[in-house]
Amino acid sequence: MDNSGKIVIAVDAMGGDFAPDQIVLGALQSARDLKVGITLVGKKSEIEYAIGKANIAGITVSIVEASEVITDQEQPAIAVMKKRDNSLSVATRLVKEQKAQAMVSAGPTGAIMVAGLQFLGSLPGVERPTVGGSFLGLAPRTVVLDLGANVGCQPYQLVNFAVIGVAYAKTFLKVENPSVGLLNVGVEEGKGDPLSKEAHMLLRKSGLNFIGNVEGHDIVREKANVIVCDGFTGNVLVKFSEGLGQILSHWLGQKLKDKISQADKEKICNDLYGVLSPSQAMGGGPLLGINGVVCKAHGNSQAQQIAGTIQQAKMAVESGFINILRESLEKVHTNIG
Amino acid sequence: MDNSGKIVIAVDAMGGDFAPDQIVLGALQSARDLKVGITLVGKKSEIEYAIGKANIAGITVSIVEASEVITDQEQPAIAVMKKRDNSLSVATRLVKEQKAQAMVSAGPTGAIMVAGLQFLGSLPGVERPTVGGSFLGLAPRTVVLDLGANVGCQPYQLVNFAVIGVAYAKTFLKVENPSVGLLNVGVEEGKGDPLSKEAHMLLRKSGLNFIGNVEGHDIVREKANVIVCDGFTGNVLVKFSEGLGQILSHWLGQKLKDKISQADKEKICNDLYGVLSPSQAMGGGPLLGINGVVCKAHGNSQAQQIAGTIQQAKMAVESGFINILRESLEKVHTNIG
Repeated sequence: MDNSGKIVIAVDAMGGDFAPDQIVLGALQSARDLKVGITLVGKKSEIEYAIGKANIAGITVSIVEASEVITDQEQPAIAVMKKRDNSLSVATRLVKEQKAQAMVSAGPTGAIMVAGLQFLGSLPGVERPTVGGSFLGLAPRTVVLDLGANVGCQPYQLVNFAVIGVAYAKTFLKVENPSVGLLNVGVEEGKGDPLSKEAHMLLRKSGLNFIGNVEGHDIVREKANVIVCDGFTGNVLVKFSEGLGQILSHWLGQKLKDKISQADKEKICNDLYGVLSPSQAMGGGPLLGINGVVCKAHGNSQAQQIAGTIQQAKMAVESGFINILRESLEKVHTNIG
Repeated sequence: MDNSGKIVIAVDAMGGDFAPDQIVLGALQSARDLKVGITLVGKKSEIEYAIGKANIAGITVSIVEASEVITDQEQPAIAVMKKRDNSLSVATRLVKEQKAQAMVSAGPTGAIMVAGLQFLGSLPGVERPTVGGSFLGLAPRTVVLDLGANVGCQPYQLVNFAVIGVAYAKTFLKVENPSVGLLNVGVEEGKGDPLSKEAHMLLRKSGLNFIGNVEGHDIVREKANVIVCDGFTGNVLVKFSEGLGQILSHWLGQKLKDKISQADKEKICNDLYGVLSPSQAMGGGPLLGINGVVCKAHGNSQAQQIAGTIQQAKMAVESGFINILRESLEKVHTNIG
């Protein structure tokens, strides 16, 4: 908290396709609208120049200098180790030093994850953070994880995803007692590959609100609030859905040609893309499993998406998301032995 | 072949939601339009009654009595063993006895597979048949397999799927040198779970036109003619796509309400469902890996779908699909050692 008791968010001003201008603009808007303290991290001269252009009067933010930037082209782990004064690491370190309560970056996910693990560590029993969230605009009340961070899982990892997804659904979707489904090839117990069979048994013992196996169509039908799967399946699904969004919106544009107004056509095709694109549905959010609030915004975020991610960071801090998660993980680990 | 040199297809008249009427009707249409000999298998009195209702003059078909029927509610392996005189087994036996060159059934997939394996066996190196075909109406030139028959695969099984997919694309899609992609979480070699890594190396050695890893969106973009994956992932994708088709066509109906004519709206929404529904794209087709032409039509097939599946069976026989497949399997097995 700052002197006035506000939550402080450290924002990596240098990460993302539209850094620093759009990041700074989104951060300034958040400082004004969300009543949060903002610390912008990056090259001071560039940040000050962007603030000048942003033209939002009367908003004060702090700046912390970081001389280096990590790009998408670098190996995340190596880049974080070599460029010690990079903006996303410096922002994360502010959380470790309790000078900020959360960090937000639109930089490369891998690097944010490495920095998060380096400075804040992972929650008990979590080896590696998971990526997930509301999967589809069509099915906003269903969180799917893992979406690609963990490929080739052990059964207990799927239980971790379930615990994390439940905390996520409670905090961000305001679901009271989130139901959990295991993505599988059939609803009957005993279905699936060895991973699914073992994970099914563990989930039964977990004490979570486990409703059993669910199938591919159940994601779209919101059959459970939290659906867990290996990151291999999750990643294929995310990309399949993204690809469908692109091709289908083009397909629909052809079908609607000369049938409705150009404006209506564009609106509906854009909406179709939006409801199918997992990245649009998720917008951005916390890296799940890190022992601190570390939020990733999309690389192509504009000011509005940055402000949205800062709002998620604020919600996570206010709701005590990390403590809830830590306690749930400990409880479930006791249940499954 | 029958006396006049026609290919004979044994059709299980009793399998499917609309048996025997729609099955018989589709078979009679095929006898007329495709110049194939048809042997209807099932309860003679019911078949004769259905023929009477079909009102197609001048078409002669044979009937072979089978007193029992296998339903979706039964355990396939047990049902096939217990009900020895069931219609789909009797139809398959006609192929074994060379009284027919192919069999077609809209009965339960599991039971057709068991009967196929029992009477005809599997092709060399294939433990269990695979299910696959053109995955999406949006991407008709891309065959995906396995779609759920084989869950928890060994790497060599993915190579088998590739060989089978290539023969399928040659025969049914008329692609000359089908390209093969391995569904994975990234295009770089070395990506993925242990199965993907090992399968990637085998596919490199296979002598097939292997283009490397492909990702979820590449299915929609037809990046390869054949895309192989474990049946777990394939099954989740199929069902996800089916679910999307249902929910999205409803969503689109709402969006288009009062914007275009009712007829146009219904047409576009139905088309949208159609291009997303793998079962509609595939229609029906051979169980891949059985040592004989055994074709499955969808359970909810009407006469038109039955006729379509009979046409596929005819193409498979005429093109020497099974021999091509056997030779390709042997060649690739030699390549991968």
